[in-house]
Amino acid sequence: MSSLNCQQLTTKNAWEFLDSIDTVLIDCDGVLWNSNDTIDGAVETIQMLRKMGKQPIFVTNNSTKSRRQYIEKFNRLGFTVSEDEIFGTAYVAGLYLKHKLKFSGKIYLIGGSGLAEELTIQGIPFIGPGYDHVEEGEDVHNWTNIELDPEVRGVLVGFDPLISFRKVCRAASYLTDPSVPYIATNLDGRLPIPNKGRVIPGTGCLVDFVTKAAARQPTVVGKPNELMFQCVKEKFPLINPERTVMVGDRLDTDILLGKNCNLKTLMVLTGISSLEDVQHNQQSTSQSLQKLVPDFYLPAFGDLHKLVKKE
Amino acid sequence: MSSLNCQQLTTKNAWEFLDSIDTVLIDCDGVLWNSNDTIDGAVETIQMLRKMGKQPIFVTNNSTKSRRQYIEKFNRLGFTVSEDEIFGTAYVAGLYLKHKLKFSGKIYLIGGSGLAEELTIQGIPFIGPGYDHVEEGEDVHNWTNIELDPEVRGVLVGFDPLISFRKVCRAASYLTDPSVPYIATNLDGRLPIPNKGRVIPGTGCLVDFVTKAAARQPTVVGKPNELMFQCVKEKFPLINPERTVMVGDRLDTDILLGKNCNLKTLMVLTGISSLEDVQHNQQSTSQSLQKLVPDFYLPAFGDLHKLVKKE
Repeated sequence: MSSLNCQQLTTKNAWEFLDSIDTVLIDCDGVLWNSNDTIDGAVETIQMLRKMGKQPIFVTNNSTKSRRQYIEKFNRLGFTVSEDEIFGTAYVAGLYLKHKLKFSGKIYLIGGSGLAEELTIQGIPFIGPGYDHVEEGEDVHNWTNIELDPEVRGVLVGFDPLISFRKVCRAASYLTDPSVPYIATNLDGRLPIPNKGRVIPGTGCLVDFVTKAAARQPTVVGKPNELMFQCVKEKFPLINPERTVMVGDRLDTDILLGKNCNLKTLMVLTGISSLEDVQHNQQSTSQSLQKLVPDFYLPAFGDLHKLVKKE
Repeated sequence: MSSLNCQQLTTKNAWEFLDSIDTVLIDCDGVLWNSNDTIDGAVETIQMLRKMGKQPIFVTNNSTKSRRQYIEKFNRLGFTVSEDEIFGTAYVAGLYLKHKLKFSGKIYLIGGSGLAEELTIQGIPFIGPGYDHVEEGEDVHNWTNIELDPEVRGVLVGFDPLISFRKVCRAASYLTDPSVPYIATNLDGRLPIPNKGRVIPGTGCLVDFVTKAAARQPTVVGKPNELMFQCVKEKFPLINPERTVMVGDRLDTDILLGKNCNLKTLMVLTGISSLEDVQHNQQSTSQSLQKLVPDFYLPAFGDLHKLVKKE
């Protein structure tokens, strides 16, 4: 199934590529936009795909937004998208709790408004969002008997810039009960930003904080976990994996999801991973690294509609 | 050198054991005290060792206190100890920066007053301690161009319950420069507390948070790094490792330090590790786990003086 060849899409092969697919799974950050800047040509490429009868589906590890909040962002940046087409980890975490785990009880949530909204939609009660900071001068006595809610029966960790020592105290304390599931939205280490001298920690950093304290590994609902694609298939049962491509900027999440689900894979160079990363994996003898070689690449997703126009 | 035998100290072998040692390296949390409660018999055992002409030296991964602050705690809990005998990771981190790295520039410190005091004593300027929290409503724009101090040339991470998303943003951003050293005091995952349903995250959790964001591994000055024992030997050059025992409650820090430095090792059961952990390691085929078997164990360090009295 997998090959170490990674072909650039050009005017020569773009039509053949498009003829081979019906469904296009598309990562958002680093593919359609960087932060609040639409990537050049992305709007036109989505429009072109729709005109060709291809189904675009948006698959993002970013847990900060509910589907409703994503619609607002898509619209603001010039995209026309329906809520059905959006699969973020906030939504998928709610589906996972509700339908796979048949979860009952309260969730202790390290996360923000997007996760809160999707849990509410699934009818899952939760506590946790907002401030829960340690005050200067507190010590071990303030945490040894930290107050826990006996109704909490699960811990969910997503992106939360209000992360605090006390939140992790609580999460790890809940997780001392092995029957309490530990779920993380995703493990991305950094947010994609253009500034090379700055780092914005991703959810993966918060998850590592909790994981070390809890001495347990989470179930990760985001890419590269196939769960993300299972949720897509449940809503769109006619999807044919062989005629589906996963488009993304990250080898270890987007491209690996595609490989895990036997999809075609297309990497774009407007985000985290680079062609040097691909070359490194092509030359590696490690099977797990060899898996991280996409079938195709493009400098930018927005180039796709230009390639086709030129024909 | 190492053996898979772990012998309980009893009235039968305690004298022989004591005759074989001149120097006793002693971990503090989980050995001498748990939080603010002195472990029964620990004060008397230290007194007995001194009367026998043995040198006690206190070797702790806890970075929250300077040597001066430790003296206060030792005194409050009934121990008589001199500053020379205390080696905490706050002190050792300062020594490492000053004497091993010949560090010049400012440190970005994730840590509290103990680290601040020891850095000041070594004449090393620093920024970082105190509040640096994210406010509700901040987003990626608040962090993309986060303000950095151009004089910062090193990052030091110790225990800091005021850890925040913004602090890790700054630390990881400083660490994008590969010439900036990344130092951690220790990697302990949890603080030892008696309450089984609660977890207090240790410095190792904060280090994992930074490490994932920085995508770099730190130099760890605390146990089991031999640096801790090197600092002891530099102050007490006559110490003979063959006649030295490391006493501790943790296999992966205390006992491993002893093994790494060819010391005798004595485990006590009043803290993190258990006899089941020892048995697990004895039965393992992994060489690195087999290393985590102490030569001796005692239910509590305070039992030692009782064993000798009974003769």
